[in-house]
Amino acid sequence: MINQLITKIKTTGAPIVVGLDPMLKFVPEHIKKNAFAEFGESLEGAGEAIWQYNKEIVDYIYDMVPAVKPQIAMYEQFGIPGLLAFKKTVDYCKQKGLIVIGDIKRGDIGSTSEAYAVGHLGKVTVGNKSYYGFDEDFATINPYLGSDGVKPFIKVCKEEKKGLFILVKTSNPSSGEFQDRLVKAQVPLDGQAAGLKTSGDRPLYEIVGEQVAKWGEEHMGDSYSYIGAVVGATYPEMGMVLRKIMPKSYILVPGYGAQGGTGKDLVPFFNEDGLGAIINSSRGIIAAYQQEKYASFGPERFGEASRAAVEDMKEDLAQALNSR
Amino acid sequence: MINQLITKIKTTGAPIVVGLDPMLKFVPEHIKKNAFAEFGESLEGAGEAIWQYNKEIVDYIYDMVPAVKPQIAMYEQFGIPGLLAFKKTVDYCKQKGLIVIGDIKRGDIGSTSEAYAVGHLGKVTVGNKSYYGFDEDFATINPYLGSDGVKPFIKVCKEEKKGLFILVKTSNPSSGEFQDRLVKAQVPLDGQAAGLKTSGDRPLYEIVGEQVAKWGEEHMGDSYSYIGAVVGATYPEMGMVLRKIMPKSYILVPGYGAQGGTGKDLVPFFNEDGLGAIINSSRGIIAAYQQEKYASFGPERFGEASRAAVEDMKEDLAQALNSR
Repeated sequence: MINQLITKIKTTGAPIVVGLDPMLKFVPEHIKKNAFAEFGESLEGAGEAIWQYNKEIVDYIYDMVPAVKPQIAMYEQFGIPGLLAFKKTVDYCKQKGLIVIGDIKRGDIGSTSEAYAVGHLGKVTVGNKSYYGFDEDFATINPYLGSDGVKPFIKVCKEEKKGLFILVKTSNPSSGEFQDRLVKAQVPLDGQAAGLKTSGDRPLYEIVGEQVAKWGEEHMGDSYSYIGAVVGATYPEMGMVLRKIMPKSYILVPGYGAQGGTGKDLVPFFNEDGLGAIINSSRGIIAAYQQEKYASFGPERFGEASRAAVEDMKEDLAQALNSR
Repeated sequence: MINQLITKIKTTGAPIVVGLDPMLKFVPEHIKKNAFAEFGESLEGAGEAIWQYNKEIVDYIYDMVPAVKPQIAMYEQFGIPGLLAFKKTVDYCKQKGLIVIGDIKRGDIGSTSEAYAVGHLGKVTVGNKSYYGFDEDFATINPYLGSDGVKPFIKVCKEEKKGLFILVKTSNPSSGEFQDRLVKAQVPLDGQAAGLKTSGDRPLYEIVGEQVAKWGEEHMGDSYSYIGAVVGATYPEMGMVLRKIMPKSYILVPGYGAQGGTGKDLVPFFNEDGLGAIINSSRGIIAAYQQEKYASFGPERFGEASRAAVEDMKEDLAQALNSR
């Protein structure tokens, strides 16, 4: 799946993932009106509204980008009807040829992580049969519980040729509260890139990044590992260091656009081969029609506005990468 | 809700939470047979089997314990039908007067954490109406993203008089990989209990514990905070330190029984008032009939076996606490 992702990035020329994080305030009135007319102002109505909204956006952007990243929280907030909309979205995106990164940020101890892994990436056994639950292609996971929380995901990824993006340094303002804490080096640092400190105090995110690189060695694709990392666009200097620590890990970079990251901030996340990073934009694309820049499309043509926003983002990234 | 939890702990004399973490291998054959006869060996069949299994256990234990803790991963692995069983279980337990701790270990950046918070603990707005999604009483959450990932949960908890248990030191063998890393003290340590080091290198879980204590001050009940912590039974010495760092936080303690913790390991998690901790047991109770000790009940009487296991656990804890 990492090989497929890279092929699609090359074909589209767009190292971009569109975050399908639908909030009701993004959904144009005409879609909400139809959904509520059929299902009422109910959880079912909300589920229908976000599903119809997603579907139209996907129809306008599926040929331009390699992947989408639905954020499950935005669906889970509507309970079961919301999760049905999540599942429909995942299935529809895969039908359209998109790679689906489930932004689920799960993580637990052994047998529980295994349950999440089979539910989102693998197959669960029921009697003599087995079934896919949500069946994303990649999932984001939280590393706070350590290796025995992560390895069950890697095991399922190996069976299914799927992948992970593990949280290393998140894009939010207070991510540093724990992730930036200076930690004493305790273990020999194998395979360390030249120029990095080998002893002394180092931030926790570097230690996590090193561990991601090690986990990644267990499940390699052709040129990159199936095990990637999440590093926020809002921290480009840390991105530069992490890029060296995890040379074979794809980096999923949230925080572009609405969260403040710009094209030039993203250069450090890429390797010399022009690969190694995929940049997420959520509301900047899916709610483009609400921005002044794309307001002329109007709410009825929100899908076209999203397409225009993808074009502009692609251009912004290409310029930044070409001028480095 | 923390006041209610404490009242119920006193009334039942059992600082115990039963982990409703149904794996199909725990479900007696006669229940699976009925469920599969009606729904086939399908995700729906699995959902029905775990729901019927949970229901019977709850019927046998609801008057003996204050709370249950369904682990959502064990439901999520069966996709939507599994999550329907989770929702039915939550609703049924609340009907029976049990406090429900959703073991969801969610955690994300601001607006996304807010979506999880309204989905699991609060109400989501749809047009002019609002609805509860899953509606647990407490939820477990992951702190790796820092304050702006946690505060949206606290906000909803204040509105709803609900609570949290934040992961501090988890029960699994590799929890130390990141959680035990020695961190340089960077901030003045307000309100620190006597006897703790105020400078030098300290493990990350202590730093997280201090932050939990601070977050807890924002949402206090009568004697304890609505904001508690998760600390594994398998690390009693760390539990003793964390008990001092977070004197007003309830500690949810997993790892009793199947994971290796015993009654005497649990004493350090309690305060002098005999309160401050609630001990989880999952398979030790729900799959008691599969243990040699309770085998005489047989699979048909698995509910009675679970009740007997709760009695024994209550006794074990009472002895340990009385002999300190």
